[in-house]
Amino acid sequence: MTTHYWIDGEPGGHWPIDDRGLRYADGVFETMRVADGQIAHFARHLRRLERGCVTLGLVMPDQERLERDVASMDLPQHAVLRLTLTRAGAGRGYAPEPASGSRRLWEIHEHTTPLARWDSTGIAVQWLETTLAVQPLLAGIKHLGRLEQVLAARELAATEADEGLVCDGRGCVVEAVSCNVFVRSGERLLTPLLDRCGVAGVARGLILDSAGVLGFDIKEQRLRRSDVALADEVFLTNSVRGARPVRQLGNVRFDDFSAAHAVHDILSGSVLLP
Amino acid sequence: MTTHYWIDGEPGGHWPIDDRGLRYADGVFETMRVADGQIAHFARHLRRLERGCVTLGLVMPDQERLERDVASMDLPQHAVLRLTLTRAGAGRGYAPEPASGSRRLWEIHEHTTPLARWDSTGIAVQWLETTLAVQPLLAGIKHLGRLEQVLAARELAATEADEGLVCDGRGCVVEAVSCNVFVRSGERLLTPLLDRCGVAGVARGLILDSAGVLGFDIKEQRLRRSDVALADEVFLTNSVRGARPVRQLGNVRFDDFSAAHAVHDILSGSVLLP
Repeated sequence: MTTHYWIDGEPGGHWPIDDRGLRYADGVFETMRVADGQIAHFARHLRRLERGCVTLGLVMPDQERLERDVASMDLPQHAVLRLTLTRAGAGRGYAPEPASGSRRLWEIHEHTTPLARWDSTGIAVQWLETTLAVQPLLAGIKHLGRLEQVLAARELAATEADEGLVCDGRGCVVEAVSCNVFVRSGERLLTPLLDRCGVAGVARGLILDSAGVLGFDIKEQRLRRSDVALADEVFLTNSVRGARPVRQLGNVRFDDFSAAHAVHDILSGSVLLP
Repeated sequence: MTTHYWIDGEPGGHWPIDDRGLRYADGVFETMRVADGQIAHFARHLRRLERGCVTLGLVMPDQERLERDVASMDLPQHAVLRLTLTRAGAGRGYAPEPASGSRRLWEIHEHTTPLARWDSTGIAVQWLETTLAVQPLLAGIKHLGRLEQVLAARELAATEADEGLVCDGRGCVVEAVSCNVFVRSGERLLTPLLDRCGVAGVARGLILDSAGVLGFDIKEQRLRRSDVALADEVFLTNSVRGARPVRQLGNVRFDDFSAAHAVHDILSGSVLLP
């Protein structure tokens, strides 16, 4: 894997050492999949980025400028693309300078093979002890403060599992370490409400908007661990990998991957939305 | 104010663009006061830094190495000194590479006058709407994920007040935007328990350990807004400013600054501890 960086429209370069992203996690980011040289679901990523900017009072760059960035970067066929936006303007102290703009850091992680391939064997998932804090002010956005995910990833690394599910401080299921979670029971497809914590993934949003195509009754809802364990089917989603079916969750085994497969086809672009 | 940077023992230089501090807020920091060319309460700052490292599983640099850094930096007479430690090792994904070390970024913000001067007029403080999330896993340490403080500072900037008090999601008082808070009622000095959120300041720790010198009964305790508003005296503390008495909190006025003054003398070093 080779990695390239672009800062504020120029290749390479250095990141300002007094940047508020580093000092205070004062910024947001998107992780996107590049397939056939194109960014999958780019418009949706920009919409979520903008939600994050509104939440933090950050300046969202013009869409034209971001499109010019992308055009000049000459994307490879297969890549993971990360865009980080931080609040510009230095100064010691938590209060941002009024009218400070934002900085753009693009990272292109080039891969040799396509990223969102269907995983027909499924993954093993574990419940994690790490909990996410209830913070409605920051819920849903993908800000730079991801220490809870780092703690959860460290916990996961000590297990044999491929991914881990985390709950909030009140015992409700939120998400996996780097994915959202869906559970299917009959014709109902449920995913946790993310009004208290968690990242509202772009893949998740696309699924919620695809009820018609999928033929499921799809809803956001508070879920307990038992709602997940007792479901007919469980799968995880993110923008890079698409949908991955869960084969095993703790001691519970699943063998129906049908909804995951249908969802994956939509996320990976094999099924075009109307 | 002039600012200088030292990275991993060398002046100036550039910060690695794939740093996990910027990507995930994966690091901790200390903000220290330099008085007469010396770092005030350096040993206490190192102890808190180490607590943060243990919490995040970060490698704490040898004390000798940090002392060598300080010696080579040739500190000015008056300065704010910030040390940021981040987890080294790049790689995409929340999970750190096993056995990754840590990076040291020192910032020296030189001032022309001493920093911790007694403020005999007191400051105006406001209750803020921004709340802090309950997250016992990260409570007390000074990690890089400070977005809640950025939100609180933005809220504060729209008021006339000098500082703002924030509560946690359950209505308990935690701290000010960049200070800890103490309230005195008679001979009792109370400060919020920080087992659910907040930063356990070095100045705060020094006060808790100074009960004998101060002659107060000092305790950590859950505090409600009314406990603060009905106190005889309220003051804020941090490592750079010492103790600042609160003259006004919302509509409530205070005119007894005696405990704040005694505490300030200890924090600023005017009273030497036994």
